[in-house]
Amino acid sequence: MTNGHLDIIERAASLFGELVVAIAVNPEKKALFEVPERLEFLRKACGHLDNVQVDYFSGLTVDYAKVQNARIIIKGLRAISDFELEFQQALMNKRLNNEIETLFIMTSPEHLFLSSSLIKDVVGWGASPDGLVPKVVEEQLLKKLRNRAGG
Amino acid sequence: MTNGHLDIIERAASLFGELVVAIAVNPEKKALFEVPERLEFLRKACGHLDNVQVDYFSGLTVDYAKVQNARIIIKGLRAISDFELEFQQALMNKRLNNEIETLFIMTSPEHLFLSSSLIKDVVGWGASPDGLVPKVVEEQLLKKLRNRAGG
Amino acid sequence: MTNGHLDIIERAASLFGELVVAIAVNPEKKALFEVPERLEFLRKACGHLDNVQVDYFSGLTVDYAKVQNARIIIKGLRAISDFELEFQQALMNKRLNNEIETLFIMTSPEHLFLSSSLIKDVVGWGASPDGLVPKVVEEQLLKKLRNRAGG
Amino acid sequence: MTNGHLDIIERAASLFGELVVAIAVNPEKKALFEVPERLEFLRKACGHLDNVQVDYFSGLTVDYAKVQNARIIIKGLRAISDFELEFQQALMNKRLNNEIETLFIMTSPEHLFLSSSLIKDVVGWGASPDGLVPKVVEEQLLKKLRNRAGG
Amino acid sequence: MTNGHLDIIERAASLFGELVVAIAVNPEKKALFEVPERLEFLRKACGHLDNVQVDYFSGLTVDYAKVQNARIIIKGLRAISDFELEFQQALMNKRLNNEIETLFIMTSPEHLFLSSSLIKDVVGWGASPDGLVPKVVEEQLLKKLRNRAGG
Amino acid sequence: MTNGHLDIIERAASLFGELVVAIAVNPEKKALFEVPERLEFLRKACGHLDNVQVDYFSGLTVDYAKVQNARIIIKGLRAISDFELEFQQALMNKRLNNEIETLFIMTSPEHLFLSSSLIKDVVGWGASPDGLVPKVVEEQLLKKLRNRAGG
Repeated sequence: MTNGHLDIIERAASLFGELVVAIAVNPEKKALFEVPERLEFLRKACGHLDNVQVDYFSGLTVDYAKVQNARIIIKGLRAISDFELEFQQALMNKRLNNEIETLFIMTSPEHLFLSSSLIKDVVGWGASPDGLVPKVVEEQLLKKLRNRAGG
Repeated sequence: MTNGHLDIIERAASLFGELVVAIAVNPEKKALFEVPERLEFLRKACGHLDNVQVDYFSGLTVDYAKVQNARIIIKGLRAISDFELEFQQALMNKRLNNEIETLFIMTSPEHLFLSSSLIKDVVGWGASPDGLVPKVVEEQLLKKLRNRAGG
Repeated sequence: MTNGHLDIIERAASLFGELVVAIAVNPEKKALFEVPERLEFLRKACGHLDNVQVDYFSGLTVDYAKVQNARIIIKGLRAISDFELEFQQALMNKRLNNEIETLFIMTSPEHLFLSSSLIKDVVGWGASPDGLVPKVVEEQLLKKLRNRAGG
Repeated sequence: MTNGHLDIIERAASLFGELVVAIAVNPEKKALFEVPERLEFLRKACGHLDNVQVDYFSGLTVDYAKVQNARIIIKGLRAISDFELEFQQALMNKRLNNEIETLFIMTSPEHLFLSSSLIKDVVGWGASPDGLVPKVVEEQLLKKLRNRAGG
Repeated sequence: MTNGHLDIIERAASLFGELVVAIAVNPEKKALFEVPERLEFLRKACGHLDNVQVDYFSGLTVDYAKVQNARIIIKGLRAISDFELEFQQALMNKRLNNEIETLFIMTSPEHLFLSSSLIKDVVGWGASPDGLVPKVVEEQLLKKLRNRAGG
Repeated sequence: MTNGHLDIIERAASLFGELVVAIAVNPEKKALFEVPERLEFLRKACGHLDNVQVDYFSGLTVDYAKVQNARIIIKGLRAISDFELEFQQALMNKRLNNEIETLFIMTSPEHLFLSSSLIKDVVGWGASPDGLVPKVVEEQLLKKLRNRAGG
């Protein structure tokens, strides 16, 4: 979770009555943090946003959206390469459930370079995560990456 | 106004309580139809959408949005080149008024090739506008383009 | 094999006297189906196309084309990211054998979102493959993915 | 007409039994050379290609292709921006006449920077057109651009 | 001249011993300000940079670079569309004079949305140019655009 | 190391007083050749360039640049996809050390299709590496890839 994600969440929360921020759990992809840790990060970083609920799910996003009675999926767009994959995904989702629409919000320019993998890289090599990730993530990220480096 | 525009309007209208569809009048750009004609097209093509209001404005989009008490600007995205210009525009709008957000909705695949200039081209050369533009636009478009060709 | 592939094959078959559809076997990449299964899919899905021959090969595409006495390689283009990789590949092939040209055909808009990996994803999570892949692939795909999910 | 165009023509001519190279005449766009001059350039530059016929047309490309009994339209692709416009155009053409397919051929790397407008620019400022355009175009291009500059 | 240009100039000036900032005069393109005004803007905005010289030229950039004994041309890159045009231009320049190289510097994220035409648009409609253009340009831009609007 | 890399090195070496060509060692990525081999390739291929020093490092590029007292990082740009990743990386580097700038140089058109992975692919399948990689790499590449194929 980066400051780019948090910015998208805060802006989306200000536009809609209710917002569910959900982690899509993919058992085949190995994330740096476990789902409970990531939920904890989200909960703390979104603590100031009253209309935001934090959750996780596995399965199809449109199925999860339906369970939540959500008509809108909000995604952040950062770059051309995002654009293409998200376009494919949005078309597929529309086909799977025509009732649900994906809306895109552009990343703020100061967060354009905040990809999770780039942050892991530079923090792993000793750069400070200050300003790149929410405060609640910083300490855990340092612990995780420095341990790994020393392992 | 193409069927691509109408599709975006219908989808947006189904997601939000109230939608204003507004023509941005640019005195320096010469459009094929005058503003009153274009308003008429919009009004007729959106007649079945109860929560859609049709309007026009000149000036800054964010200023118009404020007058309308709108927090959200909806734009359709069709291609990479759209993406870049809209990204610039959205960042500029955010700077001009931080309270207003631009959300993007992806064009349906069957409308990807519907650019106004391409339609004017092919209809001007004799292709049928059927299925490319709303029914209310068809007749006027044929009249306008065939006259011009014959002029 | 998706309906997007089938569409490209059918359109190419209608343009040329003879068409060889060949699976490029890459021993280092693990595909969902084995080569004999994939050949079987192709043979059944192309059964209605008299001038189409189904085959597989390993090695350089231009070497295989030469063995087949083919002067033209047909590829489908779906997106910008396809474009760049295919451009590189086409330039390299041209350098390896200047006699052989690569021609590109644009994917139909209704198949733009049909990437094999996206289909595997959504079908793996329970979506129906109906309309995404040829009928002959559907059953096998469900069997394979549901087993894996349950494994 | 640039050496990039000639390269595409030569490669296409080697692949198909018969090739018609046609100038699409657009009365609203002012070209540097008149249609008869451009036809003359094409005829001379393609003189060594027995199966190439040179022509011009106005109207829809698919209508012209039909008159010529052509099933295939060949276009050169140079860059991402080409890709998007050509993609739109190809989808529109497919809609106008489903029998006709557009096939794309990649520009050779040494011709990537040969856009007509860039050539007019640099030759207009005194650069030599040698190697940028066919020999038959060189002299006329110099005459036209130097006159204009001196006018 | 925008704050994006100034940022590129300042960063380039800090890297090289001597920097010439030159306006390429194109008699066929109508700019908002005349060349003497634009030179004046550049001179004032770069007044704090000791190693920067301000100039203008018409003709080929590589010819001008040669007259200046410059081996390097610095250009700012902002977006994909910039990238393609600049790539073509750089390849052409390399062909015209193999001794001169074009180096690119990425625009800072906070200037990504600063295109001259977008600024003219929004300032023309009443937005403040503060923070978008150098202070010396602000007053003149307002005068020019407000006059035009009132004309 | 490809002929594309060598071209960038030679051009950069001709522009700057001193150039350090450094391999960024990433312990998590498995390269075809070990670091000492790759250093040997670089040293031999750059033997004719007096102002080029060959080195390797692990850690942040900006930290290494600082140790070397370098103000400028030179990168080659080949394609849109390069552009986006390099843009992100350059912005991140600028944030990590504001004193160091990344400058980009465009790949020559004849090297556009030289990606290391594509070369490994085609040489692995029996294509000649002649003209794709420097002479000193050719023999080792053949040995390595042919052994692997035979293993």
